[in-house]
Order: sequence, then C-alpha cells, then structure tokens
Amino acid sequence: MTKPRYRLAADAILSPNARVSLHESAAHYLSSVLRLTVGAELLLFNRADGEWLASIEEIRKKEVVVTLGGTCLRAPTKPLGLTVCFSPIKGGRMETIIEKATELGASVLQPVITARTIVDKVNLVRAEAIAREAAEQCERIDWPEIREPVKLLKLLGDWPSDVPLIYGDESGASDSVTRLAALAVPQQWAILVGPEGGFTQGEFTALAKVKGAYGVGLGPRILRADTAIITLCVATASVWGDWHERPRFVAEGET
Amino acid sequence: MTKPRYRLAADAILSPNARVSLHESAAHYLSSVLRLTVGAELLLFNRADGEWLASIEEIRKKEVVVTLGGTCLRAPTKPLGLTVCFSPIKGGRMETIIEKATELGASVLQPVITARTIVDKVNLVRAEAIAREAAEQCERIDWPEIREPVKLLKLLGDWPSDVPLIYGDESGASDSVTRLAALAVPQQWAILVGPEGGFTQGEFTALAKVKGAYGVGLGPRILRADTAIITLCVATASVWGDWHERPRFVAEGET
Repeated sequence: MTKPRYRLAADAILSPNARVSLHESAAHYLSSVLRLTVGAELLLFNRADGEWLASIEEIRKKEVVVTLGGTCLRAPTKPLGLTVCFSPIKGGRMETIIEKATELGASVLQPVITARTIVDKVNLVRAEAIAREAAEQCERIDWPEIREPVKLLKLLGDWPSDVPLIYGDESGASDSVTRLAALAVPQQWAILVGPEGGFTQGEFTALAKVKGAYGVGLGPRILRADTAIITLCVATASVWGDWHERPRFVAEGET
Repeated sequence: MTKPRYRLAADAILSPNARVSLHESAAHYLSSVLRLTVGAELLLFNRADGEWLASIEEIRKKEVVVTLGGTCLRAPTKPLGLTVCFSPIKGGRMETIIEKATELGASVLQPVITARTIVDKVNLVRAEAIAREAAEQCERIDWPEIREPVKLLKLLGDWPSDVPLIYGDESGASDSVTRLAALAVPQQWAILVGPEGGFTQGEFTALAKVKGAYGVGLGPRILRADTAIITLCVATASVWGDWHERPRFVAEGET
C-alpha cells in the first residue's frame, strides 16, 4: 500500500467502515487548501482509536464526509512518560516549544507560572491546534494533553516523589545534564524550565526541597527558554524514552 | 562588578583602553532602541579578542563611540569542534536552525544542497546577523562561521575520514542516536540533516560509503529538519562538547 500523503488528527470515534463527518478547519483544509476530491485517501488518527485509512465520500460547503477502512492501520500506542513543564513566553517561541515537545514525544504540556513569568495566560485552543498539527507532521498517533497553567509553588507542593523532575539550572550549582544517565530509568518523568529571566533564588531553594527534583546544567552558554526545553526533551527522551524504536510507516512501507 | 545588561558582537579590534566607533545597526540599537546615554556600560566581544567592558563616550547621529576598560574580562575560548551541515529550508525554520545551533555551541554552519533541497540560496549576511544576535544572548564570545552552500556529493567526496559525520537517518536502517556514547570522543565532528523530504536512496548509499559517517535514528517520530538538527546538536555536544562547563559570568558575578 502506498502511504497516503495527508494525515489528520480527528476528534471523531474511528471504527471499522465508519462514516466520519469532518467540519470546520479540517473540512476547509481538505477541500480548499489541499483541494482534494471525492475518492482521495488520507489518514485519520487519534489517541483512543489509532490510525485509519479514510476515503473522501462527499464534499459539501462546510463538511467533508469520509469512510474509514475495515481495519485499524496502527493501534494506539502507550504514551511516552514525559511531561514538559514550561513558563509561558511570548509569540513564536511558545509555538516552537509546543511543536518541538510534540515531535520529541511529550505526553503532557504543563504551563507553569513563576515569579518572573511575564505571560500568564495561555491560549489553550491555539496551543492544542499547534500540537495537533505537529502530531500530523511527525507521524504521532496521539498529541500532548495541554493543561491549564499552574503556579510553580503549587506544582512543587503537589509533586509526586517517585516522578523525577529534571529542571534546567543555569546558576552553575548543578552537574551537567549528562549525569542523568546514572539515574534509574523512570516510567514517568518531567522536565521544567523557567522563564527568560530564570528562576529566583527563592524558587531554586523551593526546588532543592522537592524529593525527586534534579537540577542539571546545560553547558557554559545561557540557553533561551525554548532551547533549554528542547534540550531537556532530547537529553531525557533519548535515554529514557522510545528512541530505540524506528518510524513505523517508513519501515513497513517504504524501505 | 555588576554585569552590564547588554552585550554586542563587535567587528572592531578590542584592546586595553581602546576607543571604538560603532556604526549602523549597532549604533542604532544602542542609541535608538535601547536609548542608552553617555556613560552607560555594555560588553563588547569577538572571537579574536574576547569580551571587554565598554563605556559610551559619545553619541552622534549614526555613530556611537565607546571606550574599553583596561583589561579583557573573558579571554577568547577554544571553539567547540561542532560543524552543523544542514539543507537550507524556508523562512523562520532556517532562523531557528542558525539561532539554536549557535546557542548549542556550533563553530561552523555549512549549508548543504541535496537532491530534495528546495531552497538553494542562503542569505549569508542575514544568517550572520542571526548568529551574532544569538551569541549576544547566550554569552558566547564567538559566533559560528557561516559557509557558502556546497553540494552534498562534493561535501562527502572531500570528507576527512578522521572527523565523525553523524547524520540523521529516518529510514529505520540505523541504530539509535544513543549509540554515539560508544564512540571515542572526537575533537572535531559534524552533524548532517537532510531537507524536509529527506535524503534520496542514492544519497543514503553515498553516505554509507563515507569513512567516518554514522547514520543514527532519532526515535519513532519523523522529526522536522530543524528539530532533527537541534536534536543532533544536543545529542553530540552534550557528550562530546563542553557541557560540563558552567556559565562563567553568572558563576562569577551573580551567585
């Protein structure tokens, strides 16, 4: 089978031979942006139902109706145990964080309000749209859950002690991120990066008291917040995650 | 000493008590954007001369004159041995590549034209400006050298066999990036990522013949080109680079 070129994250329940109606941005994207016609094939997926082949049956003004194939092409996968805790930042860099964290396998995105956080609101609808689009691009079947912002001290107060919380520490007080290789491989873990201005001394003190929290240095350069987040995703997911696995569709269909 | 808030990459020769004239964008930035006045302090730096304290002496219409301190604050450092070879891509993602590669320590940025490269020209002046700005932000004293684009097969034909060339391989044929930990630590190395459409089969064959080239898998998701580049920078520089070092100015001045 040739792999269809387009993948769409779907809210609908996906089941054998189901008739699925796509509305709004999905319908617009298929009919007006891609200009697909009746009979064109695409892939639909979501976290609960996996990935399915879909064929366009009808195109109406604000609706595209597709029919699914008889079998699920890729079953739902166990999400990677990575939660990304980040201080909201402005504009394009927030989009970079959401897109890259999705590509690198994060399951949960948790905005965190710290003392120096400037942006204290997150457009969750926009954030979800970015995550879904990144999932469509990177062959994920699921996309991260994006939570309501929480204050840092509340997050730390409720922190489960059996979940490592790896935070970026540019103060020079912590060992290099490479020391993470010495920790036992956790099933669930989180990374945490402060805002552009960094954590306050009080926040560092609070972090040091959290059981399971590990500060790590990221080298002699001061990384931007978005770069530090991507770096901690790579540094943890590459050793604790599913990076020994290979892209499935490529491996099965194209090589 | 309190660390001055602003850092500028400088083309001028920096030496004890020198009087340095800043023009064009640097002058505009200091006088019109930051609205600094006579007596304000900043840091000037470049690869050859290191980092110096500078005090504004005169502000003219298109020129700002500063006087340097009597001693170099930070001596030039040995550049990290990381060359980033990347296929030029469109718009904002190219800026992301240049900015992040600079933050993560790359010494050389080498645009590479592959069979599926769509963008075959690189605005080197703009690229240099982005790299300089990233260096200013991340406390680097130098910034990467940005080379003229080269064709992939030419690059591979001339490749020095003692320099590992780590390339992203989404075909599923290569081991995980974590296997790099088993290689001897090189003084110089390069990473290489193809365009959004990936390498052709012919290019993979050519890569496999290069002594010193290692394909690595980056997990089950298909990363965007910019994400793959950042990932390979982190995966190699964190184990082969200077990431055991700490931010120097913070460690000396602020903690």
